[in-house]
Amino acid sequence: MLKEFHLHIKNHFPELKNTVFLLACSGGLDSVVLAHLFAKLNLQYALAHCNFNLRGKESNGDEKFVESLAIELKKECFVTSFNTKEYISKNKVSLQVAARELRYNWFAKVMEKNGIEKLVTAHHADDNLETFLINLSRGTGIDGLTGIPAKTDTISRPLLRFSREQILEYANSEKLKWREDSTNKEIKYVRNKIRHQIVPLLKELNPTFLANFIKTQDYLKQSSILAEDYLEQVKEKLLKKEGDIVKIEIAELKKCVPLNAYLYGLFKEYGFTEWDDVAGLLVGESGKEVFSKTHRLLKNREYLLLQNLNTEVNQRYQIDSDRIDLKVPFHMSISEVKTMTKTSGTTLYVDEETLKYPLTIRKWEKGDYFYPIGMKGQKKKVSKFFKDEKMSLIEKEKQWILCSENNIVWIIGKRADERYKISNKTKSILKFSVL
Amino acid sequence: MLKEFHLHIKNHFPELKNTVFLLACSGGLDSVVLAHLFAKLNLQYALAHCNFNLRGKESNGDEKFVESLAIELKKECFVTSFNTKEYISKNKVSLQVAARELRYNWFAKVMEKNGIEKLVTAHHADDNLETFLINLSRGTGIDGLTGIPAKTDTISRPLLRFSREQILEYANSEKLKWREDSTNKEIKYVRNKIRHQIVPLLKELNPTFLANFIKTQDYLKQSSILAEDYLEQVKEKLLKKEGDIVKIEIAELKKCVPLNAYLYGLFKEYGFTEWDDVAGLLVGESGKEVFSKTHRLLKNREYLLLQNLNTEVNQRYQIDSDRIDLKVPFHMSISEVKTMTKTSGTTLYVDEETLKYPLTIRKWEKGDYFYPIGMKGQKKKVSKFFKDEKMSLIEKEKQWILCSENNIVWIIGKRADERYKISNKTKSILKFSVL
Repeated sequence: MLKEFHLHIKNHFPELKNTVFLLACSGGLDSVVLAHLFAKLNLQYALAHCNFNLRGKESNGDEKFVESLAIELKKECFVTSFNTKEYISKNKVSLQVAARELRYNWFAKVMEKNGIEKLVTAHHADDNLETFLINLSRGTGIDGLTGIPAKTDTISRPLLRFSREQILEYANSEKLKWREDSTNKEIKYVRNKIRHQIVPLLKELNPTFLANFIKTQDYLKQSSILAEDYLEQVKEKLLKKEGDIVKIEIAELKKCVPLNAYLYGLFKEYGFTEWDDVAGLLVGESGKEVFSKTHRLLKNREYLLLQNLNTEVNQRYQIDSDRIDLKVPFHMSISEVKTMTKTSGTTLYVDEETLKYPLTIRKWEKGDYFYPIGMKGQKKKVSKFFKDEKMSLIEKEKQWILCSENNIVWIIGKRADERYKISNKTKSILKFSVL
Repeated sequence: MLKEFHLHIKNHFPELKNTVFLLACSGGLDSVVLAHLFAKLNLQYALAHCNFNLRGKESNGDEKFVESLAIELKKECFVTSFNTKEYISKNKVSLQVAARELRYNWFAKVMEKNGIEKLVTAHHADDNLETFLINLSRGTGIDGLTGIPAKTDTISRPLLRFSREQILEYANSEKLKWREDSTNKEIKYVRNKIRHQIVPLLKELNPTFLANFIKTQDYLKQSSILAEDYLEQVKEKLLKKEGDIVKIEIAELKKCVPLNAYLYGLFKEYGFTEWDDVAGLLVGESGKEVFSKTHRLLKNREYLLLQNLNTEVNQRYQIDSDRIDLKVPFHMSISEVKTMTKTSGTTLYVDEETLKYPLTIRKWEKGDYFYPIGMKGQKKKVSKFFKDEKMSLIEKEKQWILCSENNIVWIIGKRADERYKISNKTKSILKFSVL
């Protein structure tokens, strides 16, 4: 596998050479193999391990194991520890969501603080197959079937073309040691049931099942991109924003055949699902309306009007040069500090001289862009950033943004902007902490 | 279920009321339930049963069973018998393909002869799920995952929203009898393995698995339609036909980002699969080329040239008014007859006065359309017809078409054109028979 992997890195991940990256390592089979493979290829990286404190002694054992691995491989090692259960009850999210948010937020902080631009994770083809089947069981659209991407701006997943079997084979042939997560064997969890019961049967159907699946996901991804590109064009033409409301001319909408495909494409992101009802608006009387959890579609003479039910969306809050701590819509302390200390969770340090008061706290708006830190000054649409972060519509609407004039300083808790970062010319450091 | 089914027919298949249709009946659970449900709703239909002679006495028993069912339900019954094994060895196709071709060709003939416009089949949601998993195991694109459609111009599948379990429940509650296909229990067949081993586990993941799956397929279908609509537009812009060759301006192609999604969209139907190689042409030297099984892509200065490797594609054959039997590219007898006799396989009867000699036999061309018989004079693109028939590129290229001037008379063996059919004014009937 080493040779194959080497070639794969050379052809598809050349950016991992000549740079230092962060390698997310749980201590499990996949990330341990990745760390060893990279060490063999003389790639430069630091390990990063999160202790979620969910399995008592086992969790602490994992942490120690990764620290020893780092010593063995002569790599730097970042470790952190979370009170995951508290995070879950505080934020009312699932374990999966909590773990993902905690992990990726912390990785981003470590990278920011250490000038690291890429995160590498050990996801492989079986992970994608399992996620595909989980999403299938819950019902999903094409995006739920295309899988985790091999590359985003900041994350690379070089094992995504390899199977768990190949990874295990390599570990055994190299006599590697890794930590087994005891919960991986319990088939009461959906993913484990899929892994241990369903996937083996699927692979029996066809000896090249997994390779075929990888190809299928590639094809789906291409179709998804084409559909999305087309929708951008259709939306540009059909959706006219007027203040808080989006207007759609019914006569234009009626030209779209088959109608339901277009209704789905245009309105799915607003939470609508009952397309026959939406189609009914086009021929119904003025005043007729259909609701999703977050939006209303109202027929008003020759137009459909799309409106957000959450009035908070259009609210704005100001921070003046007196820098009084924010109380509404959430608590955030603002203070001048001498140095950057170890960051945890949701803290931002900026060069105060780059800011122009009053600062604004608001939700995202169509057309928003920023210069994500660590991307060498590359500009990125906020909508694209949200998409890469796989944020749901609800998550997007909950997301607050800190602006200086109308420039984005911080996608709060998620990503800072390059233009406001601390440099060796910074005279005054301002610290924002979400409490 | 009867009530639910009644409502479903009323809302989604109103065309089945006030018309006589053909109900494909194997004698198995699904089609027997469909026949009974329709009888309860007082719908007008005739049964049609194919005996494929693959299971000896069992096959003959099925045939007798359907004939008795027809008597019980007081319906007309059409029955035919095929030498399926001979068809397989003669045409070098799989059992599935043979059975499908034989079945649908015969249904079309029965319908044509009896003035029946719709065929109804008993496919249900589990059939679609099984096909989804079969295609997934083999590797597929989005089209392989969207399932068999609930409706085409001539086929309706009113049970597609119902599960096998619901159908079985209805059969038991009504104490219906049906024939069990003994091979359905053998898990050596891929479909049976999926049905008996994999699907039950998937349904255990989520009590609403099948309902979610139906929704997922709907969403995929919508995305697929959007991607296809977009591709039509992109192809229109980028692919320029010049004689046998399609020219693509490289500078225009390079504007398509991400390139691979567009290469896939534009060239997948020509059998290309190695997108990195195709992308390589854009930056490679003039004269560089990539081959699929059927096509060549050649870089020629500022253009990519797409060429069919099968020179037969552009060949044409004529039939003059002396109506000599065709020998090349295949055997077809042409003769004037007094009456239409029972048709079998690939025979067409036309009103000779509607023809203009010389007739032409050729392959299909971009822009081809015709007026499929039984569609009330509705026009249909041949490309759309091929798509609905789920024909592969190879099948499309093998397909011959009979034309009068440049109007399509017959998609040979598949579908006749409305404009040339026999009417009560016909003076001279011409019979074409592919041998």
